[in-house]
Amino acid sequence: MLLIELDPHSERPAYLQIRDRVVELVDLGALSPGDRLPPTRVLAETVGVHRSTVVRAYDEIRALGYLESRSGSYTTVRRRARRPATSEMAAESDRDSIIDWAEAARASTGDRHLRAVGASPFAKGTEAIDFDRLTADPALAPMDEIRSCLRRVMSSSEDAALEYADPSGWPPLRTGIAARLRSHGVAVDDDEVLITNGAQGAIDLILRLLFRRGDAIVVEAPTYGTLHPLLELHGIRPLEVPMTDHGMDLHGLENLLDDHAPRLVYTMPNFHNPTGITTDQRHRERLLEVCEAHRIPILEDGFEEEMKYFGRAVLPIKSMDSGGIVLYVGTFSKVVFPGFRVGWIAAPREVIRRLAAVQHASNLASSTIAQAAADRFCRRGAFELYLRRIHRVYRCRMRAMLGGLERSLPPDIRWTRPVGGYTLWLTLTEPVEAEDEIVHSLLDAGVRVAPGRAFYANPPRRAHLRLCIACVDERSIEEGCEILGRILKGRRIRSSVATGT
Amino acid sequence: MLLIELDPHSERPAYLQIRDRVVELVDLGALSPGDRLPPTRVLAETVGVHRSTVVRAYDEIRALGYLESRSGSYTTVRRRARRPATSEMAAESDRDSIIDWAEAARASTGDRHLRAVGASPFAKGTEAIDFDRLTADPALAPMDEIRSCLRRVMSSSEDAALEYADPSGWPPLRTGIAARLRSHGVAVDDDEVLITNGAQGAIDLILRLLFRRGDAIVVEAPTYGTLHPLLELHGIRPLEVPMTDHGMDLHGLENLLDDHAPRLVYTMPNFHNPTGITTDQRHRERLLEVCEAHRIPILEDGFEEEMKYFGRAVLPIKSMDSGGIVLYVGTFSKVVFPGFRVGWIAAPREVIRRLAAVQHASNLASSTIAQAAADRFCRRGAFELYLRRIHRVYRCRMRAMLGGLERSLPPDIRWTRPVGGYTLWLTLTEPVEAEDEIVHSLLDAGVRVAPGRAFYANPPRRAHLRLCIACVDERSIEEGCEILGRILKGRRIRSSVATGT
Repeated sequence: MLLIELDPHSERPAYLQIRDRVVELVDLGALSPGDRLPPTRVLAETVGVHRSTVVRAYDEIRALGYLESRSGSYTTVRRRARRPATSEMAAESDRDSIIDWAEAARASTGDRHLRAVGASPFAKGTEAIDFDRLTADPALAPMDEIRSCLRRVMSSSEDAALEYADPSGWPPLRTGIAARLRSHGVAVDDDEVLITNGAQGAIDLILRLLFRRGDAIVVEAPTYGTLHPLLELHGIRPLEVPMTDHGMDLHGLENLLDDHAPRLVYTMPNFHNPTGITTDQRHRERLLEVCEAHRIPILEDGFEEEMKYFGRAVLPIKSMDSGGIVLYVGTFSKVVFPGFRVGWIAAPREVIRRLAAVQHASNLASSTIAQAAADRFCRRGAFELYLRRIHRVYRCRMRAMLGGLERSLPPDIRWTRPVGGYTLWLTLTEPVEAEDEIVHSLLDAGVRVAPGRAFYANPPRRAHLRLCIACVDERSIEEGCEILGRILKGRRIRSSVATGT
Repeated sequence: MLLIELDPHSERPAYLQIRDRVVELVDLGALSPGDRLPPTRVLAETVGVHRSTVVRAYDEIRALGYLESRSGSYTTVRRRARRPATSEMAAESDRDSIIDWAEAARASTGDRHLRAVGASPFAKGTEAIDFDRLTADPALAPMDEIRSCLRRVMSSSEDAALEYADPSGWPPLRTGIAARLRSHGVAVDDDEVLITNGAQGAIDLILRLLFRRGDAIVVEAPTYGTLHPLLELHGIRPLEVPMTDHGMDLHGLENLLDDHAPRLVYTMPNFHNPTGITTDQRHRERLLEVCEAHRIPILEDGFEEEMKYFGRAVLPIKSMDSGGIVLYVGTFSKVVFPGFRVGWIAAPREVIRRLAAVQHASNLASSTIAQAAADRFCRRGAFELYLRRIHRVYRCRMRAMLGGLERSLPPDIRWTRPVGGYTLWLTLTEPVEAEDEIVHSLLDAGVRVAPGRAFYANPPRRAHLRLCIACVDERSIEEGCEILGRILKGRRIRSSVATGT
């Protein structure tokens, strides 16, 4: 006889009380696999409920995997993995897998990255002045325009916006991106453009096409931090070329290309992440010549192409690419709606054709609705208006930052003076080992920055910090600079005292 | 002196006329790199326009990459790759790349797939009765509900819907999917769920984590067609286990596992694509036991979990996974809004943690807006209502299909009798080589079907066809069956005449 008693005063429905009790009995071992449950009619009479209540309870128990019915006959307890996890249980115990997944994994993004993703730094909620976050300020997002674009997409294109997109991208958006690239001097047609899951997805596709485990890539040192876990995942060896004040050291590059056979040179000519350096026309031409001579493709990451807000525009390397060796990557994400995940690649047709196949095989296509909304946002001129607006904002912020650093930092600290984008790069006099301590002192003082080491494969000698003005207003920038100055000067004094100098 | 004359009667603005003429002169070779352009004041006087018009024209020409200015001095013509492509030009000529991209590519999805993606079968527009298309019928899509969800997402979560999502997925959606899985008997908590770019993206992530080039995977034969280009991309060897009428041949599987060391067994227990076969409880338990004994993980593809519309539900293999060896993949795409690209993986925490890192490194995260809208769609109960509605529709369609085949097909052709999903599988008496001809005859007669060979790594002896009722209404299904019967019988008669039997 089943030991089931209902609590008539409970707010919990009777069928759930029955379900929970039976599940408990199985979990306790009081009921074993193969045991029969009483017929619904019998149990209903015993506990004093309507039979339909018991039927419903049995359905629930079955859905949880605890029962098995042979049609027309009795209901028996069946083998069940374990109880449905509850949040309390999850904290206590993890499932014991008979497979060692750490060993089964044949690829990894690296321990540091694995820990970082696990720690969910992606969660928001800090009171600090955030010089770390590199994404357009959500406070500036043109919500009404975007909302209106989504509305129009859903009402005008009807079901097309819900359907699988072409793996090469939503055709009107490809057309729009090609036109936008032409306005930057890049002569491409629609079918030389592929829409991707953001710039990160674009780089990943290119690596998938051109690399095998063990191959080498040339990267700037420092370079985009999230490139490193991606290279690790692919098993690609980074060959680091130091950044000078004017961009990648081209002599260093030539020596590398002579000695190794990398399959790609990765570069960010505009507002380089993390340094903020923009290369000039001469540097771009020379880089192109060097790579053409060695027949090495260039991956030009134009992730902030639209963020030139000081001075004259310099055309992308891709605009001079008569040899068809440049694979150009762009994205909306550093300017507007990063969550849409819309980026693009401009490249020779043969490359686009192969990349489209890789994209189709790996995820069929990017999200249609986001592509269609982004397209509309550009087409109605909202993107241009928005860009003009944020250019004004970031001109002021960058000036505030440069002024604040000038006023607050000790004179032997060097920093870059970007003509656009969001990031600046500080070179400290302390060794790289001091970075963690500095970053934590700053955080304690209410300022969040990125340590320089995150942007290198092989750490440099000196400590660096990346400062980012993307999500910080002018007042906070000035305040942040003061704190930065205070902490760095304080360390100086302490270290002089300690060493007796 | 520059040969520029304006057409005063043209509607084209003067600055564009100047731009086009200069570009033409450079392209013709009349102006060479290094040549100086006249100062804007001089040209303005010569052609009779305001100086600002010429300044604007020069800016345009510069943006196209044809000019170079040294600040404060003259403007010179610069090296330019080629004219901005126009659609007419694109058709004529492709860019000559100094790199042989076919050779540079280190990975490929296979020639057949490359051609298929290039041919853009993804474009719509056929008059045929489409028994090929496998996606929920757009005509049934709950547009108003989805529109309303998007509106609510944009108005309530404000900027969060535009921001980067957590690489593991939009947290409320993870919670919702975990709850949905529990209702299918799969005991998982939120952090055992990862949101992906559709089921294809989910499978790709799993392959990236667990495989290296040269590793082997067990697949059913036939299996999901787009798995093959993905395996090719990864360099993974498929080991095919034949499908019986009741699912994967488990004796065949055991022999394979004894002789090889595959890293995964891929299976679709519900409405298997292409055959439509659903395995029973016993088969699932036995498959799990075999894989547990060999410590081989199972990838259970539950791509149509919600599409059980006949008979009793069978619980997923994952619901019995006490050993923690099952990686379960699900998706909305075969039921609603495929273009949203929202799928998921349920797996042990350690696997989810590693997959989240792979996802972050490869594209940061899936599209937030689509995830948030999908979440709302489920949460308000719209998904359940919609499912009930389409179940009614597909019950009728599947009955129409089964009845139509019974009436129209010659008696020696066999077909499956699915209890849900969209696809049926025909086994013909002709050899596999006849498939192309059959598919083309059918298309000529107005019926599109998928040839069986597309679902195998190694083609079988017999010809097969996959029929899909997803996007065809009852009337067309009946008509399609008649055409199918007529064509297949016609071939029989012709072949008897030809062979004299």
